[in-house]
Amino acid sequence: MIRLGILGGGQLAQMTAQAAISLGVEIVIFERKPDSPASRLTHHQVVGAWDDDSALEEFISLCDVITLENEFVDASVLETIEEAGVPVYPSSATLARVQDKLIQKTTMREAGIPVPDFLGVESPDSIRIAADQFGYPMLLKARRDGYDGYGNFTLESEDDIETAWEELGGNDGRGLMIEKFVPFEYELAVMVLRGRDGEIRTYPVVETVQRDHICHVVRAPANVPADSVQIAEEIARKAVTAIDGVGVFGVELFKLKDSTILYNEIAPRPHNSGHYTIEACVTSQFENHIRTVLGWSLGATSLVTPSAVMVNLLGERDGEAEAEGIRDALAIAGAHVHIYSKRAVRPGRKMGHITVLADSIEEAEARARQAADLVNL
Amino acid sequence: MIRLGILGGGQLAQMTAQAAISLGVEIVIFERKPDSPASRLTHHQVVGAWDDDSALEEFISLCDVITLENEFVDASVLETIEEAGVPVYPSSATLARVQDKLIQKTTMREAGIPVPDFLGVESPDSIRIAADQFGYPMLLKARRDGYDGYGNFTLESEDDIETAWEELGGNDGRGLMIEKFVPFEYELAVMVLRGRDGEIRTYPVVETVQRDHICHVVRAPANVPADSVQIAEEIARKAVTAIDGVGVFGVELFKLKDSTILYNEIAPRPHNSGHYTIEACVTSQFENHIRTVLGWSLGATSLVTPSAVMVNLLGERDGEAEAEGIRDALAIAGAHVHIYSKRAVRPGRKMGHITVLADSIEEAEARARQAADLVNL
Repeated sequence: MIRLGILGGGQLAQMTAQAAISLGVEIVIFERKPDSPASRLTHHQVVGAWDDDSALEEFISLCDVITLENEFVDASVLETIEEAGVPVYPSSATLARVQDKLIQKTTMREAGIPVPDFLGVESPDSIRIAADQFGYPMLLKARRDGYDGYGNFTLESEDDIETAWEELGGNDGRGLMIEKFVPFEYELAVMVLRGRDGEIRTYPVVETVQRDHICHVVRAPANVPADSVQIAEEIARKAVTAIDGVGVFGVELFKLKDSTILYNEIAPRPHNSGHYTIEACVTSQFENHIRTVLGWSLGATSLVTPSAVMVNLLGERDGEAEAEGIRDALAIAGAHVHIYSKRAVRPGRKMGHITVLADSIEEAEARARQAADLVNL
Repeated sequence: MIRLGILGGGQLAQMTAQAAISLGVEIVIFERKPDSPASRLTHHQVVGAWDDDSALEEFISLCDVITLENEFVDASVLETIEEAGVPVYPSSATLARVQDKLIQKTTMREAGIPVPDFLGVESPDSIRIAADQFGYPMLLKARRDGYDGYGNFTLESEDDIETAWEELGGNDGRGLMIEKFVPFEYELAVMVLRGRDGEIRTYPVVETVQRDHICHVVRAPANVPADSVQIAEEIARKAVTAIDGVGVFGVELFKLKDSTILYNEIAPRPHNSGHYTIEACVTSQFENHIRTVLGWSLGATSLVTPSAVMVNLLGERDGEAEAEGIRDALAIAGAHVHIYSKRAVRPGRKMGHITVLADSIEEAEARARQAADLVNL
């Protein structure tokens, strides 16, 4: 059996492992701690830090091909894998262009992709100077390792600069950048699939709704005009091509009221905005990610339903996770429940999701929200 | 997390385990040998014989609820589980009515279900006497432990009796029965779901095509008149009710040319004729089996596509299994490939299956067969 290694053992690795079973592909998980959601689905696991040389060596020796479930792996780890002769996707070069947001956005702008104005900043003073050009509000962002709103600070006025600078680690030498605030109407996302040979396919353009900077609801397809769909797909394809990506990528976009569409960011892996594909598309993002990184043929990305809505199950307290309400949620007709089986819950933590397919977005969303409200993890 | 124990670790347990992941249910596998397909998906495994008291005790201690993946477990094993206070479905009483085919058919006949004529036989002479009543051809069958044609012998004339009697173990005291041969036009099957509270749901009636007594192709829905569908569903519901079944059951039927429908047999578990439900129905037979044995709500059983066809991937040689052709099969648009990852292959062994959804049975079948032909395991 072919062995696919995954750097990380969370829910994205778990759902990838689930898809791997049908394909006859064995999974190897490399995660800092034992008992991660994905590690429970395989007997092949390395527990250790990704930058621990001997753990990494052991992991490489167990794998035929390697991928990752988040972009916080240092590109140098991927370089070590490449030097050992094991194919790894995304590549170190792709990851290096993604994981530093300043480099990422520069790469995209150079590729002709419309992005919000941005600038690297080295001091509070340079933020003040940028403000003259951008105007408030602006976003101060950590260049690396931000997620779900962590690592972002909205600057409403000059008064916020010192606090934001300190909070995001500017005084500790952390790389920061500012970005012009974009008054978007919708946030859109597109999952893109790109093969080793450059063949490229997009999943439907979806609308994502955030709650406290965390993905909360995904509506597929997005209710936007056909020309917006075309522009969004075009940007998404360009973005993945610009970083020479292989595998599945989540491209997030802003749609403004005047129909302008701007690039927001890219995730070099399966993405929350693509979970709906498990039930709603011919081939799920997870199966397609596996197929693509293995160099196999790309699966069809079309919808099998008029509409689908996914609602995240987010933690609401600190403590040990429970499974309350799962059976109640399942009683909602057509509710597809996905539990990530994390042992601990904390506010805002992604604990699972629910997808409902229906003839309209409204119907799908009403049922998905109703089911999600019944779960208390 | 709730722990569901499964007696057996083959492909049915594997696909049940796959469905369990999304529901946040942990699986415990009890199988004679290590490294079974399902055992690779969990860290909770007991290796031993089902009738080994200490292994069984260990297994029971690990589980909240228990089910099985085949009917070759002795009902006494289920009794031990029941005595230990752990819910097990199907129950020992249900299994006792199923696993001996003479008892099974007697139960069904007494419930008013139309079955082919049958008779228990104690000697070659009693077969000769029955022949006067039934006429040739007749089937001589082992009352227990037959599958995929093993344990069956077609008697074309009196000359076959001694050979068949010896081959099926009559001289060793194995219980045998004869059954009148039914000149069927089609074989049909219905998956039935029955809850702890007696709530009952049927999946669509499908047509099954056997090759050398092994399920080869399943067409959903079956191309039979509406009244035949109604009769088939009615028989299937009656059959599961007659054995007080809880969980998912596969009911196999014969449809004669004159539209008579006769009961053939029942599998007290997910069944090959229901694999198509993974992609083609709102809720798969595996998810519904788990939900039902846990006492949760029953999921919708309707088709999400006009037509679906499943083709089994059967072994064609003896040796170590390989994964050749999987990537070729995936290149067929819409081919959903399921590999069971058995280490060894032998002729006729079920190694995987392929399902294709389409607007017509013809289209689905053409593509499913094309994809299956490309795989060489």
